[in-house]
Amino acid sequence: MACCGNCFGCRRCSEEETRTPEELTILGEIRDEEEEILPRKDYESLDYDRCVSEPYVELLEGMDNKKAKKYEALRWMMVFAIGASVGLVGLFVDFFVRFFTKLKFSLPVAAGSGIPEIKSYLNGVKIPGIVRLRTFFCKAVGVLFSVAGGLFVGKEGPMIHSGAILGAGLPQFQSITFKRIKFNFPFFRSDRDKRDFVSAGAAAGVAAAFGAPIGGTLFSLEEGSSFWNQALTWKVLFCSMSATFTLNFFRSGINFNKWGSFQLPGLLNFGEFKCPDGDKNCHLWTAVDLAFFVLMGIVGGLLGALFNCMNRNLAKYRMRHIHPKAKFIRVIESLLVAMVTSVVIFAASMFLGECRDLYSPTGHNTTLSVGQDINSTTRQYFCTNKTYNDMATLFFNPQEAAIHQLFHQDGTFSPVTLSVFFLLYFLLACWTYGVSVPSGLFVPSLLCGAAFGRLVANILKVKLGMDIYAGTFALIGAAAFLGGVVRMTISLTVILIESTNEITLGLPIMITLMVAKWTGDLFNKGIYDIHIQLRGVPLLEWETEVEMDKLTASDIMEPNLTYVYPHTRVQSLVSILRTTIYHAFPVVTENRQNERDFMKGNILVSNNIHFKKASIVSRASEQRRRCQSMKSYPSSELRNVCDEQRAVVEPADEGEDLLQQMLERRHMPYPNLYPDQSPSEEWTMEERFRPLTFHGLILRSQLVNLLMRGVCYAENQSSATQPRLTYAEMTEDYPRYPDIHDLDLTQLSPRMIVDVTPYMNPCPYTVSPNTRISQVFNLFRTMGLRHLPVVNAVGEIVGIITRHNLTHEFLMAKLRQHYVTI
Amino acid sequence: MACCGNCFGCRRCSEEETRTPEELTILGEIRDEEEEILPRKDYESLDYDRCVSEPYVELLEGMDNKKAKKYEALRWMMVFAIGASVGLVGLFVDFFVRFFTKLKFSLPVAAGSGIPEIKSYLNGVKIPGIVRLRTFFCKAVGVLFSVAGGLFVGKEGPMIHSGAILGAGLPQFQSITFKRIKFNFPFFRSDRDKRDFVSAGAAAGVAAAFGAPIGGTLFSLEEGSSFWNQALTWKVLFCSMSATFTLNFFRSGINFNKWGSFQLPGLLNFGEFKCPDGDKNCHLWTAVDLAFFVLMGIVGGLLGALFNCMNRNLAKYRMRHIHPKAKFIRVIESLLVAMVTSVVIFAASMFLGECRDLYSPTGHNTTLSVGQDINSTTRQYFCTNKTYNDMATLFFNPQEAAIHQLFHQDGTFSPVTLSVFFLLYFLLACWTYGVSVPSGLFVPSLLCGAAFGRLVANILKVKLGMDIYAGTFALIGAAAFLGGVVRMTISLTVILIESTNEITLGLPIMITLMVAKWTGDLFNKGIYDIHIQLRGVPLLEWETEVEMDKLTASDIMEPNLTYVYPHTRVQSLVSILRTTIYHAFPVVTENRQNERDFMKGNILVSNNIHFKKASIVSRASEQRRRCQSMKSYPSSELRNVCDEQRAVVEPADEGEDLLQQMLERRHMPYPNLYPDQSPSEEWTMEERFRPLTFHGLILRSQLVNLLMRGVCYAENQSSATQPRLTYAEMTEDYPRYPDIHDLDLTQLSPRMIVDVTPYMNPCPYTVSPNTRISQVFNLFRTMGLRHLPVVNAVGEIVGIITRHNLTHEFLMAKLRQHYVTI
Repeated sequence: MACCGNCFGCRRCSEEETRTPEELTILGEIRDEEEEILPRKDYESLDYDRCVSEPYVELLEGMDNKKAKKYEALRWMMVFAIGASVGLVGLFVDFFVRFFTKLKFSLPVAAGSGIPEIKSYLNGVKIPGIVRLRTFFCKAVGVLFSVAGGLFVGKEGPMIHSGAILGAGLPQFQSITFKRIKFNFPFFRSDRDKRDFVSAGAAAGVAAAFGAPIGGTLFSLEEGSSFWNQALTWKVLFCSMSATFTLNFFRSGINFNKWGSFQLPGLLNFGEFKCPDGDKNCHLWTAVDLAFFVLMGIVGGLLGALFNCMNRNLAKYRMRHIHPKAKFIRVIESLLVAMVTSVVIFAASMFLGECRDLYSPTGHNTTLSVGQDINSTTRQYFCTNKTYNDMATLFFNPQEAAIHQLFHQDGTFSPVTLSVFFLLYFLLACWTYGVSVPSGLFVPSLLCGAAFGRLVANILKVKLGMDIYAGTFALIGAAAFLGGVVRMTISLTVILIESTNEITLGLPIMITLMVAKWTGDLFNKGIYDIHIQLRGVPLLEWETEVEMDKLTASDIMEPNLTYVYPHTRVQSLVSILRTTIYHAFPVVTENRQNERDFMKGNILVSNNIHFKKASIVSRASEQRRRCQSMKSYPSSELRNVCDEQRAVVEPADEGEDLLQQMLERRHMPYPNLYPDQSPSEEWTMEERFRPLTFHGLILRSQLVNLLMRGVCYAENQSSATQPRLTYAEMTEDYPRYPDIHDLDLTQLSPRMIVDVTPYMNPCPYTVSPNTRISQVFNLFRTMGLRHLPVVNAVGEIVGIITRHNLTHEFLMAKLRQHYVTI
Repeated sequence: MACCGNCFGCRRCSEEETRTPEELTILGEIRDEEEEILPRKDYESLDYDRCVSEPYVELLEGMDNKKAKKYEALRWMMVFAIGASVGLVGLFVDFFVRFFTKLKFSLPVAAGSGIPEIKSYLNGVKIPGIVRLRTFFCKAVGVLFSVAGGLFVGKEGPMIHSGAILGAGLPQFQSITFKRIKFNFPFFRSDRDKRDFVSAGAAAGVAAAFGAPIGGTLFSLEEGSSFWNQALTWKVLFCSMSATFTLNFFRSGINFNKWGSFQLPGLLNFGEFKCPDGDKNCHLWTAVDLAFFVLMGIVGGLLGALFNCMNRNLAKYRMRHIHPKAKFIRVIESLLVAMVTSVVIFAASMFLGECRDLYSPTGHNTTLSVGQDINSTTRQYFCTNKTYNDMATLFFNPQEAAIHQLFHQDGTFSPVTLSVFFLLYFLLACWTYGVSVPSGLFVPSLLCGAAFGRLVANILKVKLGMDIYAGTFALIGAAAFLGGVVRMTISLTVILIESTNEITLGLPIMITLMVAKWTGDLFNKGIYDIHIQLRGVPLLEWETEVEMDKLTASDIMEPNLTYVYPHTRVQSLVSILRTTIYHAFPVVTENRQNERDFMKGNILVSNNIHFKKASIVSRASEQRRRCQSMKSYPSSELRNVCDEQRAVVEPADEGEDLLQQMLERRHMPYPNLYPDQSPSEEWTMEERFRPLTFHGLILRSQLVNLLMRGVCYAENQSSATQPRLTYAEMTEDYPRYPDIHDLDLTQLSPRMIVDVTPYMNPCPYTVSPNTRISQVFNLFRTMGLRHLPVVNAVGEIVGIITRHNLTHEFLMAKLRQHYVTI
């Protein structure tokens, strides 16, 4: 389907992500600027808004508070089940990672951390196959091999993804097995419920990974939920707590044989930051340290930006040169990474490590809260007795143990060791993230940052002789680097506070993260956003910039509409569904009468009527305005195409031809609707874009469903004879609805009429064409919409807004255009 | 103004909260059920939505990203200033409470805890005088006297209120002092910004009171913000952190003379829950304990419900018998409370206390984290050396010290002492909350609950010989009772976790709170909601019940509209403003032409047109429907009033007369608009309720402003000659706009015409009449709306929805009516 060469801004119609040069010019992109990756059009929104069609209303009528409470209870049970399962998955991952660490072999299975995908899903983008069971197994098993395989990756990213999949899967699985319970209440079979459960699952994943149930809840809220819904939040927190609880119960039981005690909250924990009991002068931090923390935040932000920039270029290189090739190339890359990693750590430990005394000069050993002595994880590695090799201690331990070393080992690491370790780890982690294995970024970033922080502490303590607590500096360094890389804000603060189990460290952590984020944001985006952008996912930001408010809804809407009438022939519907790929169609009636205004002598009355006439945006005038603005847009090749007369008479070059075909095809789907009114080439813009009163929205899936189930009536009968579907029948096939091409056309009688009005959404949210972008954006994002019709003051639809019209890239292009035309 | 006796559901027009018997019948209330307190109509919504009128657009055009960033920076500075100030207020309160505790005198100043007010404000209700500076001083000083005066009240409620006032006041103060900076950017002068700052301030108040910055942030979000806005949340957290930081810095400096260390995070802290180092078998809690925690949660919920029920009845009694009387009666009640409290604690300590050994049998003394020995706060009180009086230890200490005793003192308190203490404290606290002094409820509830928890622990430990950690039980008891009283969820969990500084206690705290809330909710609402309800504040819940979705927007909207035209004469505007009390008016044009439809032979076309005609709700048919439903409603006295013919010909009894007068007055405001069309008694409903095309909303304050500044043009001139106001001029008087009655009528030329279109909000969110309540509610609550016009499919306004149409009571009444009529 090569189309899209028209001036009206038709988009979405290309299934590939190719763009014509004209389009690129319109969007203000220069062709050879290959760098720019624009959001792809094949990602659709989830449908968070409720469609209150008649079957749903019938269902509603049978609903009372008692029933509602029953289903609410079911929801809580599901949430607990999700949480507990995530906890068990965490247990499984943890157990086998320990088990396999000794075996040391590597075999990559399912790629990536999964956090960008979950972030996109929670933002409201439907990503195919992201919450499938198969992905789940690949993740859960794959992460074992990659962590155990010695790669510099963490297990928390895949944990979060696993949690989300369980959230999506468990309530659905339930709908198959216990069909009896669900029969009267198919409410879980909607994007809305699924997304709520996915939020809970993702939060549980964070909770299990870090032992941070509140942080997990905030993570879900920060990334996903558009509005703060107390009931949902409470469920998400419960799910997180369940996961922590389950994991903690079993781990404490298995590891210490103390069933019923709860001593190991999360897979990752930072140990206890604590001054030795006797030392009254010891502080975890002081006001003076804060100044250093701010500086470390700045450096962390810079390092994070550098990391992201390198990783971004690497990912682009991979997309261009490795992904198109055979799969085994990816496997080879993964093996290469593993090999290089091994060689580097052996070599570095051997040649660059220093042997240091086992007992630290200050004389007190901070013990881990789990009762494990910190010194048990030091490594001798070619050093004599009572000394240890500091480089090997960092490299030849699980990452968590290395972090513990940096946070709590009083024996100093030499500055050279720390610098070398930081540099090597930085480079290797950067290379590893994005390689085709399941991987997380949190733990490597923390370790890398902790080395940096410890380095600062060493310099301050040894060189400047300051009285500081080295562990706090290591923690702040870790926070600074991680914050610089991922740029998360509140949730990360809380996750780190919960992992630290020391609330007094909250303030420095928050300040550091804030500074790191601000510094990093000057250069590029967070690593997850970068990967989301590279995939072309149309993510919606939190807010639009103030500048965007110079645009209105009519500037960004899609003005070319494919619509259906309340009563439409089967053949028209089939034709529409087969020739377009839109996911929803406005249901409209045409406005044919000419408006006759009462023009009275009274100046007030005519003033008022004048205002009314002037203020109503119509489709035809809107189209004319667009053509006008397109013509004044300097670099557009298409500017003369819009000229009404010429476009009709001259079928000139290919670009214009395409546009013409397109315009005609747009009217083809209604061959027999008004036989006396078939579109002709002589039509003026007013005739072509005649006013349409908007009545509702109907989804493609619903139309296909109606056709499949033969919902229609004969021409000579009343529409009341049309068979009625129940809500359960309407949603039975969720989430994989049949395609129009699966339809057996010979089964349909083309002259029958379908009354779509009982099944459409009769009152979606709408906006007026003059609404400012910030308002449109807020409504769309907050209500989790998929389609937002733009309706003028007399109820006529003039356009439609989808997620793609609200991405930052699209808005920027429109703003540039706005500046050029004024 | 006695009106409101009509069948159309006119409400809002009464300034008093009196209701006619007819109205009560319609609303399904029985007259003598005096108990029911309905939301009062004199509370208006805040205006969170932006009004994008032309002056605003002009302002916007001058805006670029650089400027926007500058103002963003200003916002951050404001937020820091608020946080720091709240911290200083906390310091001040803390310092003087300690100081005055020795002086012991009582003098009530400003009443109540303030939390219900702040909760209402954050919910979007404008409460007059709530965020005034005068209130602030009364609170801050008054709380000193009431806490120091020995009443059983906490200082955290007033702290939160003080924070909110600072949030509201500081950015406004700034606008007066530094006028130069703000001149081009009067954005802080709107309800939107003010509410954001109040959120931050309230969060800072919680943070300072409990040392819980994250809990404070969640408190603000839970109570206030409708949608999770990342930028706002981040600012709120920063503000909380600033408050904690400032308070901590100064307290550590002043109390320990250790400037620069941070050891005293909040005004309230629970000390350290910690097993003694040597004891390996000690657990803070185990899985078995969880079962007891659930039971304690249930009991806590029951006790909380009892407390709320008693306090509610007391508050009602006070409203009826004490508040109407002279102010000194309230003072006398406060003094009485203080006196009884003193007598009771002396008597109880003397006669019911037991003397116990100072050193506990288990032999280890848990020390407070602040380095203060727990035994220093025991009280001998007529006991011999080396023993202490357990009752006196609880009563003769500051509440925080008593909580510490219950949480950490290993020496057991006798079950009798604990029971008596609980009972007395419960009764006295219940009496005290609501008395006319600034008071908080958190600390008394915690203390009361801790006694209950400690009692359970004593029974389990001593009688059943279980190996438990008594402090945890005391904490859980405190959580259970507090949860039962206030019914807060996530924020309370986090506040308690942060105050405890022990994350492993998170799970039991959360489970207990959840159980307590669920149990309590079976009986009544939380104490704050009860007090909000008693004041008749129209609070919006989080969600509507599923059952409410049986109603649509047209069922609940206000169908009687007072409207203005785009161009209106000054005299009409004055007349409208003087005879109504609405806060906003739709700007409309009339639709006078008769619709002529094309009825073709083609069945499809006529089907579609038929659908269009059938689906469009018009004002006249809507009115007819309401009359119809009213007539079928059995107990209504008014049912025959709506009968069109009779209502016009027969001016029968008083009720009908009132209605008639009302209807006529409704049309009076437009005396000279259409001189040939003045309303006559022969009008049919169609003529009276002719269709109106909706163009925008204009606020009362804006209209008064336009009149005051002489914005109008002469009849024989173009509207372009009308003077233009800037955005700054439009908002100059915020938040106290002039009243219409302040207007000097002699200054106005009544025949001039005002063009309101540049100043109206041209594209507010609207809903269709068939929209389900849940959708309407979500839009209203989430977007923080004040007026929501209901517009049909052809753009005609048929009604308007305000906060009062969405309160639980109103919806319930409408639902009952719905059930009766079907």
